[in-house]
Amino acid sequence: MNIVGIGPGDRDSLTPRAYRAILDCQVIVGYKAYLKFLNGLLKGKEIISSGMTKEIRRAEKAIEKALAGNDVCLISSGDPGIYGMAGMILELLGKEEAGKIPIEIIPGVTAASSCASLLGAPLMNDFAVISLSDLLTDSKVIEKRIRFACRGDFVIVFYNPKSRKRIKPLQKAWQILMKYRSPQTPVGIVRNARRADEEVIIISLKDMLAVKQIDMGATVIVGNSKTFTKGRYMITPRGYELKKV
Amino acid sequence: MNIVGIGPGDRDSLTPRAYRAILDCQVIVGYKAYLKFLNGLLKGKEIISSGMTKEIRRAEKAIEKALAGNDVCLISSGDPGIYGMAGMILELLGKEEAGKIPIEIIPGVTAASSCASLLGAPLMNDFAVISLSDLLTDSKVIEKRIRFACRGDFVIVFYNPKSRKRIKPLQKAWQILMKYRSPQTPVGIVRNARRADEEVIIISLKDMLAVKQIDMGATVIVGNSKTFTKGRYMITPRGYELKKV
Repeated sequence: MNIVGIGPGDRDSLTPRAYRAILDCQVIVGYKAYLKFLNGLLKGKEIISSGMTKEIRRAEKAIEKALAGNDVCLISSGDPGIYGMAGMILELLGKEEAGKIPIEIIPGVTAASSCASLLGAPLMNDFAVISLSDLLTDSKVIEKRIRFACRGDFVIVFYNPKSRKRIKPLQKAWQILMKYRSPQTPVGIVRNARRADEEVIIISLKDMLAVKQIDMGATVIVGNSKTFTKGRYMITPRGYELKKV
Repeated sequence: MNIVGIGPGDRDSLTPRAYRAILDCQVIVGYKAYLKFLNGLLKGKEIISSGMTKEIRRAEKAIEKALAGNDVCLISSGDPGIYGMAGMILELLGKEEAGKIPIEIIPGVTAASSCASLLGAPLMNDFAVISLSDLLTDSKVIEKRIRFACRGDFVIVFYNPKSRKRIKPLQKAWQILMKYRSPQTPVGIVRNARRADEEVIIISLKDMLAVKQIDMGATVIVGNSKTFTKGRYMITPRGYELKKV
């Protein structure tokens, strides 16, 4: 079974390894919204897709199909190793099954990278990646991590910042950030990176919560104490001594 | 100018966007050791390459060539937005120059992703990315970040863990890790991911310093309090309630 990262979704970000695995397989399993990015690659294949919170069932289905002798691709957006499907398959696979199903994890361009590339260079120095989804992680743990990421002066990348029903974790994150960082700290928000409706916004921390575009398709990058803006870019210095023109 | 991430180095990880930019350009600028991965793509192009610590000079050269009207690709391994060349170009570019040189940053598969894919699923929960190079960041800042990453129970990904001359930061990092994490914490080390001489090692934190393979071609991933090993895999649970078989 291949656990395949397709990157942000455009064909130009799909690695050849991922492309070939998808072309060569018989069964494709994935979240509905991601499979639409694979338009044109799915002909003649068995497609098993389902909604957002059905990932355990999808993983079980993928294992079932692989045990039955099919070449299976389980699709993750971005990188399957970062909040993706890789962990679930490895956790679910019993010892005997693992012997029967060779697993390959095919990495992809994760949201931190695709979004940073559109904002400028916010990740030139140490950073922390935090999911704001409190479905699987206790909100106290999330808040603790935000506090320590602030105290360590990490740039912070928030995955899953907000959904229609889940608004509080972002508000809470903002309160913590405002306690530790200057209200002028640059914040980059990218929604639907590398897709037709891509949106890129750079704003000050103090105004972050007003940004309507923060949703499940968005990634939020909060600068560290040294991050600055220059023209349309957000830049965290690596530490070189460069002449500023 | 395109600032191009080539991923770990194998052609199968090179995105179509990066591939095309390289094929179409006239001038390629990059660190010598990375250009060898582009074998076969460089014919007929002007090649400007130099050694490891010459990156400011390379960036200046790339700007010079672009200002002279050439299509230039500046090459980074992995993702140019993560400790890569994107920041330096954006910092160096004066306002007037920026108007003349359109910049595109082409993201790539970063070492955290390519290495995690070979270790199993260590990055299924929140993680911190820290460079152990003290050339550009004060060692006190690095140590502070390691401490806070430990206190936040982040999985930690160390880039640039060690070089021939730079051994101390890794030793110091280990001492801090041993203070906060169980000596049994799984540590994954991947050297030369997706290259012919790839090496993948999973070991306990207490034994980490003995691993000879930790060098500038290696990435080190230290588990959080919940990371476990299973067969040949290192897994950090996402938090799903899964039956363990």
